[in-house]
Amino acid sequence: MKGLDYFFFPKKVAVIGASEKANKIGNVIMKNMIKAGFKGKLIPVNPKTKKILGKKCVKTVKEINNLDLAVIAVPAKIVPKIIRECGQAKTKAVIIVSAGFNEVGNMTVTKELFKAMQEFPDMRVLGPNCLGILHVKKGIDTLFLPYERLGRTPHGRISFASQSGAVGSTLIDWASMKSYGINKFISFGNALDVNVTELLEYLNKDKETKVICLYIEGLEEGRKLLKTGKKVSKNTPIVVLKGGVTEAGKTAAVSHTGSIAGEARVVKAAFKQSHMVEAKSFEQLFNFARVLSNEPLTKGKKVQIITDGGGYAVLAADALIENGLELALMEKKNLNSLKKIVPVFAELKNVIDLTGDATTEMYKKATELALKDKNIDMILLIVLFPPPLLDKNIVYEIIKLHKKQIKPIIVVSASGNYTESQKKIMEKQFVPTFTFPKDAAESLKALYDYSLFRGKVKR
Amino acid sequence: MKGLDYFFFPKKVAVIGASEKANKIGNVIMKNMIKAGFKGKLIPVNPKTKKILGKKCVKTVKEINNLDLAVIAVPAKIVPKIIRECGQAKTKAVIIVSAGFNEVGNMTVTKELFKAMQEFPDMRVLGPNCLGILHVKKGIDTLFLPYERLGRTPHGRISFASQSGAVGSTLIDWASMKSYGINKFISFGNALDVNVTELLEYLNKDKETKVICLYIEGLEEGRKLLKTGKKVSKNTPIVVLKGGVTEAGKTAAVSHTGSIAGEARVVKAAFKQSHMVEAKSFEQLFNFARVLSNEPLTKGKKVQIITDGGGYAVLAADALIENGLELALMEKKNLNSLKKIVPVFAELKNVIDLTGDATTEMYKKATELALKDKNIDMILLIVLFPPPLLDKNIVYEIIKLHKKQIKPIIVVSASGNYTESQKKIMEKQFVPTFTFPKDAAESLKALYDYSLFRGKVKR
Repeated sequence: MKGLDYFFFPKKVAVIGASEKANKIGNVIMKNMIKAGFKGKLIPVNPKTKKILGKKCVKTVKEINNLDLAVIAVPAKIVPKIIRECGQAKTKAVIIVSAGFNEVGNMTVTKELFKAMQEFPDMRVLGPNCLGILHVKKGIDTLFLPYERLGRTPHGRISFASQSGAVGSTLIDWASMKSYGINKFISFGNALDVNVTELLEYLNKDKETKVICLYIEGLEEGRKLLKTGKKVSKNTPIVVLKGGVTEAGKTAAVSHTGSIAGEARVVKAAFKQSHMVEAKSFEQLFNFARVLSNEPLTKGKKVQIITDGGGYAVLAADALIENGLELALMEKKNLNSLKKIVPVFAELKNVIDLTGDATTEMYKKATELALKDKNIDMILLIVLFPPPLLDKNIVYEIIKLHKKQIKPIIVVSASGNYTESQKKIMEKQFVPTFTFPKDAAESLKALYDYSLFRGKVKR
Repeated sequence: MKGLDYFFFPKKVAVIGASEKANKIGNVIMKNMIKAGFKGKLIPVNPKTKKILGKKCVKTVKEINNLDLAVIAVPAKIVPKIIRECGQAKTKAVIIVSAGFNEVGNMTVTKELFKAMQEFPDMRVLGPNCLGILHVKKGIDTLFLPYERLGRTPHGRISFASQSGAVGSTLIDWASMKSYGINKFISFGNALDVNVTELLEYLNKDKETKVICLYIEGLEEGRKLLKTGKKVSKNTPIVVLKGGVTEAGKTAAVSHTGSIAGEARVVKAAFKQSHMVEAKSFEQLFNFARVLSNEPLTKGKKVQIITDGGGYAVLAADALIENGLELALMEKKNLNSLKKIVPVFAELKNVIDLTGDATTEMYKKATELALKDKNIDMILLIVLFPPPLLDKNIVYEIIKLHKKQIKPIIVVSASGNYTESQKKIMEKQFVPTFTFPKDAAESLKALYDYSLFRGKVKR
């Protein structure tokens, strides 16, 4: 292991400030590491206790040899001292979850912390004022929020670095509810050492990360970030959401993580130049990331809509056009094949409307034709589940067709509890699903733009 | 009763085309009326069966006296004949759920239907090609989709008329998942008799309807709709989503409900002129409707953000400013009161950040101060549930404060399953909740604009 690996693949982890009291941060982190299924050695550090959650305590981190990762959850004022102890113990990596540093204007203790860090330049530090790491596959979970209150995401292809802990963790919770998979989540807080640029470089080399999501407020090392972003984007798509784009937002951002938010328009232009994909909302962040991580790049902008509800097709057509995409017009021979299997009422122009009589078989046939059709670049399936003839196999057929990765296939399924359960089945198999046509269209546009940048668009 | 009342408050309902076969539309409607708890007389009409779902069949509608409402679920070609029978029986109102008329270019049968309707001008007809009515309070449910597949909304303050059945019903399903209340839902389909303008007039006089939502594709009687919309808006806010705004969407719309979609810009301008609130997506439709139906009108554009997560406040501040609203700055005396109860780290500028140490008590005090503060017009509470000190009472305190209806109070709570459960508690008590700051800000803007039109804005 080297560099940032110690944060994601540690074999020995200490929790400094571990506690037996149920609501204490040092207790919650211990519990969560256990719950996450961490298979390495987990050591609580607390000078006043003998055992925590059945694990033997040590009095100080200096008693631990070959420590890969220390998680520090003690009051700000003693953090510098603890950092020195970690350094003396030759700890490889440290996460400081404690708050109360430059983000609240406490510069004295921040300087002291920084000085302590400088004394041990080989020891990497994440934070302070952060939630640290969630890496489901390796059972690393330093988020100090209990599982009852904050869901954890399944293992996936998207990695996500967030400056704000609250934003990051609530998005993890939201994504978990939707069954969106996350590979590595990093809350980097005040970034006194490990910063967003280095995380980009690291995640770009990570084979499991297909897309990087970023939430940032400040742009301290803006030029470096953009330069790195441009380089990384050639290999791994980056979707970025920037908080603090208005003056008011900036004022809030300054006090929040101690950063100065950049000028909105400049930032927007800069992201575009560096080919980072800008999201305008949390939903877009994950919408774009899901499509970019799970779909092949597209060769063009022609989208075939296949639907069982006319009204949704109207809105989808509107949204595609408004996003600069086009409706595909199927080759004549394929249209003729299609006519043999769809109902009399079905519309067979630029929207294939299978109507309320749609069956799984019709969806399958229509999609297979669209996959081989030369006039079609991307496929938007609108599947409204209420039609009585549509059986439960529809989601598994879609998953099978999607797995071929011939052309992008995404799904719009509006509506309630039953549909959500069907969408989760698809999400777990990496089929991007959407509730509303507008979100689907915006995401296909993001995929088209990125495909253009990567030189994949042929027409 | 008179006019459209027979659709919403019938005492005797017949289902023509009722069936014993589980998947048949005529069976589903019978089941749903029973499940919805209809307390009047429900009569299946089928010449070949004696009993359906335990209820005695009649052979023809002509055997029924004083029929308030007939629901017709038979093939298109025999609908004209059935309509004549309904007319002969002096039926007050008819819903034709059957499809296969002008929406698929079948003009012969459409003309025949129209002719039959003309013979009985006093009998009101909804449809054809529609889902009919959902009026939870009176147990009227003609939506031919089973409860397992399509959730039903709780009783509420928003009424919703939709041209498209698929759009309407999936939105009902979605709203039910979110616990958004709906008063009367009407899918009006091809609108050969009862049309959107008449529905607007009716719902405007309905005391239980606080906001009217519309989904329309065509604008056949555009000028009349806009004129009526302008009149109704002075009393009841109308939120409208128009499908088919692009050329491609229009092509899809033409075939879908047989209507010609209007020109996008013209339509937009027209809505604005008539003070109908235009929504750009399904989510906005319900977001705007929830805020307009549950909040008092605002006296100004100054919004106080109260939060326990800095990152969300940054995004909320951005979104408010981008929507032309302003951040409030609390009166000095109130700020001083506030300082006594909030933690040291808390930011007390134009955003009240209670930080991760926030308690229910702090939220309550801060909101009470904001309610009486002269510099504050609206309150945006951001409540991220993970903070450990925030107990379960927070939602009940918010409900209590909201019930006072002194100023608009809306809530942003991002994240997953636990939070959703808390948001549902608030929704059921009419507190509008949002997952993302952007949606909340857009909704407050809609409220501000409508308040301006109603002459309530004082500065």
